[in-house]
Amino acid sequence: MSDKTSNRMWGGRFAAGPDAIMEAINASIGFDQRLAAQDIAGSRAHAAMLAATGIISDSDAEAIREGLLTILSEIEAGEFAFSTALEDIHMNVEARLKDLIGDPAGRLHTGRSRNDQVATDFRLWVRDQIDAATEGLRALIGALLTQAEAGADWVMPGFTHLQTAQPVTWGHHMMAYVEMFSRDLSRFTDARVRMNESPLGAAALAGTSFPIDREMTAKALGFDRPMANSLDAVSDRDFALEFLAHASICAMHLSRFAEELVIWSSAQFRFVTLSDRFSTGSSIMPQKKNPDAAELIRAKIGRIFGANVALMTVMKGLPLAYSKDMQEDKEQVFDAADNLMLALAAMTGMVGDMTANREALRAAASAGFSTATDLADWLVRELGLPFREAHHVTGALVALAEKKGCDLPDLSLSELQTGHEGITQEVYSVLGVDNSVASRVSYGGTSGERVREQVARWKEQLA
Amino acid sequence: MSDKTSNRMWGGRFAAGPDAIMEAINASIGFDQRLAAQDIAGSRAHAAMLAATGIISDSDAEAIREGLLTILSEIEAGEFAFSTALEDIHMNVEARLKDLIGDPAGRLHTGRSRNDQVATDFRLWVRDQIDAATEGLRALIGALLTQAEAGADWVMPGFTHLQTAQPVTWGHHMMAYVEMFSRDLSRFTDARVRMNESPLGAAALAGTSFPIDREMTAKALGFDRPMANSLDAVSDRDFALEFLAHASICAMHLSRFAEELVIWSSAQFRFVTLSDRFSTGSSIMPQKKNPDAAELIRAKIGRIFGANVALMTVMKGLPLAYSKDMQEDKEQVFDAADNLMLALAAMTGMVGDMTANREALRAAASAGFSTATDLADWLVRELGLPFREAHHVTGALVALAEKKGCDLPDLSLSELQTGHEGITQEVYSVLGVDNSVASRVSYGGTSGERVREQVARWKEQLA
Amino acid sequence: MSDKTSNRMWGGRFAAGPDAIMEAINASIGFDQRLAAQDIAGSRAHAAMLAATGIISDSDAEAIREGLLTILSEIEAGEFAFSTALEDIHMNVEARLKDLIGDPAGRLHTGRSRNDQVATDFRLWVRDQIDAATEGLRALIGALLTQAEAGADWVMPGFTHLQTAQPVTWGHHMMAYVEMFSRDLSRFTDARVRMNESPLGAAALAGTSFPIDREMTAKALGFDRPMANSLDAVSDRDFALEFLAHASICAMHLSRFAEELVIWSSAQFRFVTLSDRFSTGSSIMPQKKNPDAAELIRAKIGRIFGANVALMTVMKGLPLAYSKDMQEDKEQVFDAADNLMLALAAMTGMVGDMTANREALRAAASAGFSTATDLADWLVRELGLPFREAHHVTGALVALAEKKGCDLPDLSLSELQTGHEGITQEVYSVLGVDNSVASRVSYGGTSGERVREQVARWKEQLA
Amino acid sequence: MSDKTSNRMWGGRFAAGPDAIMEAINASIGFDQRLAAQDIAGSRAHAAMLAATGIISDSDAEAIREGLLTILSEIEAGEFAFSTALEDIHMNVEARLKDLIGDPAGRLHTGRSRNDQVATDFRLWVRDQIDAATEGLRALIGALLTQAEAGADWVMPGFTHLQTAQPVTWGHHMMAYVEMFSRDLSRFTDARVRMNESPLGAAALAGTSFPIDREMTAKALGFDRPMANSLDAVSDRDFALEFLAHASICAMHLSRFAEELVIWSSAQFRFVTLSDRFSTGSSIMPQKKNPDAAELIRAKIGRIFGANVALMTVMKGLPLAYSKDMQEDKEQVFDAADNLMLALAAMTGMVGDMTANREALRAAASAGFSTATDLADWLVRELGLPFREAHHVTGALVALAEKKGCDLPDLSLSELQTGHEGITQEVYSVLGVDNSVASRVSYGGTSGERVREQVARWKEQLA
Repeated sequence: MSDKTSNRMWGGRFAAGPDAIMEAINASIGFDQRLAAQDIAGSRAHAAMLAATGIISDSDAEAIREGLLTILSEIEAGEFAFSTALEDIHMNVEARLKDLIGDPAGRLHTGRSRNDQVATDFRLWVRDQIDAATEGLRALIGALLTQAEAGADWVMPGFTHLQTAQPVTWGHHMMAYVEMFSRDLSRFTDARVRMNESPLGAAALAGTSFPIDREMTAKALGFDRPMANSLDAVSDRDFALEFLAHASICAMHLSRFAEELVIWSSAQFRFVTLSDRFSTGSSIMPQKKNPDAAELIRAKIGRIFGANVALMTVMKGLPLAYSKDMQEDKEQVFDAADNLMLALAAMTGMVGDMTANREALRAAASAGFSTATDLADWLVRELGLPFREAHHVTGALVALAEKKGCDLPDLSLSELQTGHEGITQEVYSVLGVDNSVASRVSYGGTSGERVREQVARWKEQLA
Repeated sequence: MSDKTSNRMWGGRFAAGPDAIMEAINASIGFDQRLAAQDIAGSRAHAAMLAATGIISDSDAEAIREGLLTILSEIEAGEFAFSTALEDIHMNVEARLKDLIGDPAGRLHTGRSRNDQVATDFRLWVRDQIDAATEGLRALIGALLTQAEAGADWVMPGFTHLQTAQPVTWGHHMMAYVEMFSRDLSRFTDARVRMNESPLGAAALAGTSFPIDREMTAKALGFDRPMANSLDAVSDRDFALEFLAHASICAMHLSRFAEELVIWSSAQFRFVTLSDRFSTGSSIMPQKKNPDAAELIRAKIGRIFGANVALMTVMKGLPLAYSKDMQEDKEQVFDAADNLMLALAAMTGMVGDMTANREALRAAASAGFSTATDLADWLVRELGLPFREAHHVTGALVALAEKKGCDLPDLSLSELQTGHEGITQEVYSVLGVDNSVASRVSYGGTSGERVREQVARWKEQLA
Repeated sequence: MSDKTSNRMWGGRFAAGPDAIMEAINASIGFDQRLAAQDIAGSRAHAAMLAATGIISDSDAEAIREGLLTILSEIEAGEFAFSTALEDIHMNVEARLKDLIGDPAGRLHTGRSRNDQVATDFRLWVRDQIDAATEGLRALIGALLTQAEAGADWVMPGFTHLQTAQPVTWGHHMMAYVEMFSRDLSRFTDARVRMNESPLGAAALAGTSFPIDREMTAKALGFDRPMANSLDAVSDRDFALEFLAHASICAMHLSRFAEELVIWSSAQFRFVTLSDRFSTGSSIMPQKKNPDAAELIRAKIGRIFGANVALMTVMKGLPLAYSKDMQEDKEQVFDAADNLMLALAAMTGMVGDMTANREALRAAASAGFSTATDLADWLVRELGLPFREAHHVTGALVALAEKKGCDLPDLSLSELQTGHEGITQEVYSVLGVDNSVASRVSYGGTSGERVREQVARWKEQLA
Repeated sequence: MSDKTSNRMWGGRFAAGPDAIMEAINASIGFDQRLAAQDIAGSRAHAAMLAATGIISDSDAEAIREGLLTILSEIEAGEFAFSTALEDIHMNVEARLKDLIGDPAGRLHTGRSRNDQVATDFRLWVRDQIDAATEGLRALIGALLTQAEAGADWVMPGFTHLQTAQPVTWGHHMMAYVEMFSRDLSRFTDARVRMNESPLGAAALAGTSFPIDREMTAKALGFDRPMANSLDAVSDRDFALEFLAHASICAMHLSRFAEELVIWSSAQFRFVTLSDRFSTGSSIMPQKKNPDAAELIRAKIGRIFGANVALMTVMKGLPLAYSKDMQEDKEQVFDAADNLMLALAAMTGMVGDMTANREALRAAASAGFSTATDLADWLVRELGLPFREAHHVTGALVALAEKKGCDLPDLSLSELQTGHEGITQEVYSVLGVDNSVASRVSYGGTSGERVREQVARWKEQLA
């Protein structure tokens, strides 16, 4: 095939032909260099174990240790020359080690293979991300608790269908997100326990005949134990999928809160004012603040859950043990983790900075006959009306108020008595929004009292 | 608008016009009648609590209890007339209760609303599915343990890239799936603990001013505690998403095993024979067995993970508290749960019935110089060669065997010594596949000894 | 295994053991009976062709035709007894035909197989759905055009980031959705052309040695041509995936519009009033209208795109030709199609019924200095200021107005001249919202004139 | 808040505090610099139009043109200093233009905004990718046609359920993929027509009052026409979603073929030999070839369809017009496009290089009584047996052959006549695999003759 044909056939970007294509699709060093620290930690643990079990000499182990530390310094200093020809981080480190220390480098690979090595490195990396997510969630919950405590009694509308349903408190609304993010915390915690097992020493897929000590390397790397089946150890990516699944649910929570912040920031709602730091302005309309950060956070569920779909699709139907398809695992998890941490940090910053517009919240809560349910409950509780009849009476009074262009507390007692003659002056005690929220003292209810209890409980729990 | 225009506009299937369309999109009774038992259980617990706290009378509570039991009988007997006009299971039950007992029915709804009611019902249903998945997984693991124990020493090829890499044992391969499915078990267990909280009493979204006892209803329904925030209680669907996420990973494991069974059943592999019960035949080719069940199991990840995508998409960006969008949650979980249970049962049946073709497995394991790694390890271990040099020597000897058309153990000692003169008669002890697998005694390794240990461990753990 | 063990092992729902499980996972008649009409049409076309080519006798063909018509009547009348033991619609029809006409029934299967039969049936069904989607989209576009024409000049805020950016017209906003839905129309049209090829006669996978006439059956079934490769004909599901992909984009458009309707219906926006037919009320708050239909439409993207994910996942990595996995195709497409048609009909109904609140729209458009851009453009156009300088001047004047608590047109000429001394009385002609929208006459712009042109263009195009 | 607290709160990676977080989440220059060429092309077209319509002077336009060309050179030479503080490619180019030419730079933005600018740039970029995909698909189809032509008559097993069903030809199997990839081609072609409209001049969202000529800029950029609605123009991302949907179906086809290549390369199948260039070896097992490229291609559907999910999720429920969420569109499409092109190129290379193992294919096709259907068809055709009876006779003869350990053509005539006494010597003409495939001459059938016709048709069509 002439060069010209070749060029046409492969298209401009692959003009260099098959070898360039294979290198482009096969090499992973472009992204897996992010595993450098984990790779070196894994190799250090392995070398120490090989020496402790007498498989290699102490002097070899020492040479390996020093070589690896040198490589780590080079990478951290940005002085390491990553080579695509050497395909991946493991071969890059190994080749450099050979340069630095010669023969002993060749002994490092005794009793392990690239399959368990990459599984170990990636698992360590994901474990770090679980820890980062945990930290990020705790910070966000902290910011929410601060908002909730300050506004435990501030009245705002509680919505269903984005229609005002009943008054609630600002603190109660913030605490709903504390519950959500604390479930995320709990999921990540469970995932960490489950995934904290060491694949190292599974070798290619069958284990090894060298008298290695997998407990020792597991312990050195902070794992609770070695994985119990070598085939599973090299072909399992559950830990990555579970991370993505939990990250996706967390991103969903973030998307809900972000949606609320976008709506609340609109000129029509004006429930909150976001800080300048997390908004962008317009050179031409200085009063305008676009909730860019909230919108971007709302969008992050896309790529995070997209990564979940991607990896699940990759894993579908793969026979044991290692298949090269699994090399596609890392970029998805890298991107999802980066974006989750970024979204958590941005939300934490926004929540810390935002100001609730108490007057607007209160005014909105008071409109729309939001205490109609309180009136109905009063009729049930105080006059013993059946629930459905109380609803009927209330509906008639709401219709009367609407016709008069006023709100429920603005009706006179005699007007109220047109609904039911048993109504007394006492009823006004439940018709205002403050009375309404204060009355909802059932466990988990919206009253300031209950909100403060929950704030206290969470502060203690997270201390 | 004339009827004719209307017909054209709405299309044939909605010829009845707007009301039919609204009913079709709005009513959920077509599917949520599956929650009937949960709905009645929730109402019974609520009524008992209302009486215990003095909110309703004991006689009302008793009438409600009897009415609900009657309704449950009617539903179980298939005699209940579900009405689409009554929209959902909750209204259907409530309306029937009114028919049966009159006024007291109206008091059942005191201190709760449809929002916490549906959240409670659905949570109870999902909890049952978690229990069913747990049971299904335990049965499957049991079937795998039986296979593993029987074939702890049977030699088969271990694959990477679907190429023979090293010999492993049948038992070891089965136990890899035990590990996977036991992680699924662990995930479902964690999810159950996390989701086992009661939304009941959260009312519409704000809690209630009635002196209800949420601990009491929670306990009656087997929940560990009431949910701590009423807004969260009615707007949370994490429990459903987490169920779908775990079901998806489990379905992924099933797809991998199913893929192996399909490949292993091919005329080219002949590693296993599936039973007639889980295959279909051909009238024309009586010897042919299609692995239909395995293929269908392989496919189930599609709809199960598709349901996860569906519900995650629905929840994206929903403001608090309840939005009608959330009505789309149930059908997804119903379908995913049904198919997960079916796939687990079918896989358990297939595993229980299938026969490993020991000769074919052994022959395949012996081909392809599968003990080359053993030779290399021997060179390292016994002659002290560096790993990379041992690889080089081994490669040369494999090439020699290939040229001669024989396998490694068929080379004479002098031929082997052309690779390295230090090679002794001893080397033959690692060149056969039985020796190879027997030698891999590292923890988690493929030797029969290790496999039997793991079988014993799991039997004890699951007892 | 004793019955009792078996019961425990399979779980309650599969107590009947392996045979029940296999039937449950394998049989498709529970859902593929929806293909009955297509199956009979395909068989009729095939029989007529077999007779025309002399493969079967005319009398056999006539018997088959009459038998099939009888079966169709039975099914339409609800009198057909579908049998799960007969697995699928094809075998159910075939068995009944045998009952009805005896031996000739056995000749119907000459030169075809179940593989091309199911591919033909399903393709016919999907083609009908494309036609239904086309009809539904045309109805929706019609409703939007009516709204756009009525409100071509009504001023409303144009949003970016849900912040008021510039005034636009109601008609312009409606026409944006006309563009979106017309692209959906175009996609379905393209898909129909591409998929309108007949698999019939591909037989099991290799074609046949009978002298069949595939052109004839293709023509009889309304296909443009027979498919050109028999392996592809039985293993292709692109037509289903493409339907799902286009349905998903359409559902995304619906979700955007539905989101706007939910927000616009809030007490804070009050931009539209939805009709009672597409809302639900509250017994207790008679003024409240929940936009249930809009919320449910917003959610439909979940299950429709979920179905796309499901089928794509199923098809991933399937070797040719037919694999049983592909039986999972139908339920996904059935559910997605049903819900797409329902969502289109509901949206059409809502759009037809809804009322724009012109005063609220206009008031919102006038707030927030929404004509600041017009002022800046005037400075560029009339005074020749560079764009960035015009922005600066405008920003200063907006700040001045904000400080004074008035809007831009409320500033006096001398106040405006503090921003730039060249400003003249003329400037007031662009500061009002009506002037603003009327001025945007660039092609595709928001002026009433442009909107009416587009309405006219679309009316003509869709006539 | 002290620095220390701040550090703890934001986590190590966001130690720099809120401003760093906002920059990290908000800036797009890290990825949208890939749009540089498109951005400059769009600006050049816009400037030329502004001059032609008299909105800016010719000298300004000339300065802008020269400045933009300088910037393009700087970027292509790698000398452009991209600034994160300037957020995106548009502001980076604009700021540099201001440096280079001063005031005239400020006039370039007349009658457009960042919203239509980014929509134009991205649309141009996606259009290029459609063209690249088209080119890549044509190359792949070319490679398949070469394989098909060479092996039009080579016999191989046709599979259903991965079980041998009937013999087919290598050419026929290759041509099945030609059909699939040609549908991909057709989809991309349709998408290009649909998306080839210009958003430029839609301005922020409402159009503009400047007398711009959108036809002129559309034509200059190769668009067929300007988009007809300015709100739609800035908020539409259908073109990106449609690209992703089509890329996903194409990736699904690639995954099926890749799966076949992985299976065919196994030691058990040995149907093909992949070239060294698209495999990787083992230092220790020189005969081993891992089909890495095929596995990686199989996996690409994950990230490509994952990107589809990601962007669909982002777009769900976004109100008009521009929301910042939409900034998440680019990275998904970039990654999917890069990987689609890479996968197409790698598959083209593999197909061009691979060698069919004709003997293994033929042997596999001959096993398993693969011509049983031919025998049954002969009984129907020549002896007039009803189809189901012919099946019965064939089944009996297959059972006989299986019992004797031979294949169908090895049975003697008298043995065959035990199945049906009418069988004659003629029957042997259909029992061999060559006869079988040669007989399947129905349109689209597997005979070499039909395959060659299809090859010729496609060659002409794609010429």
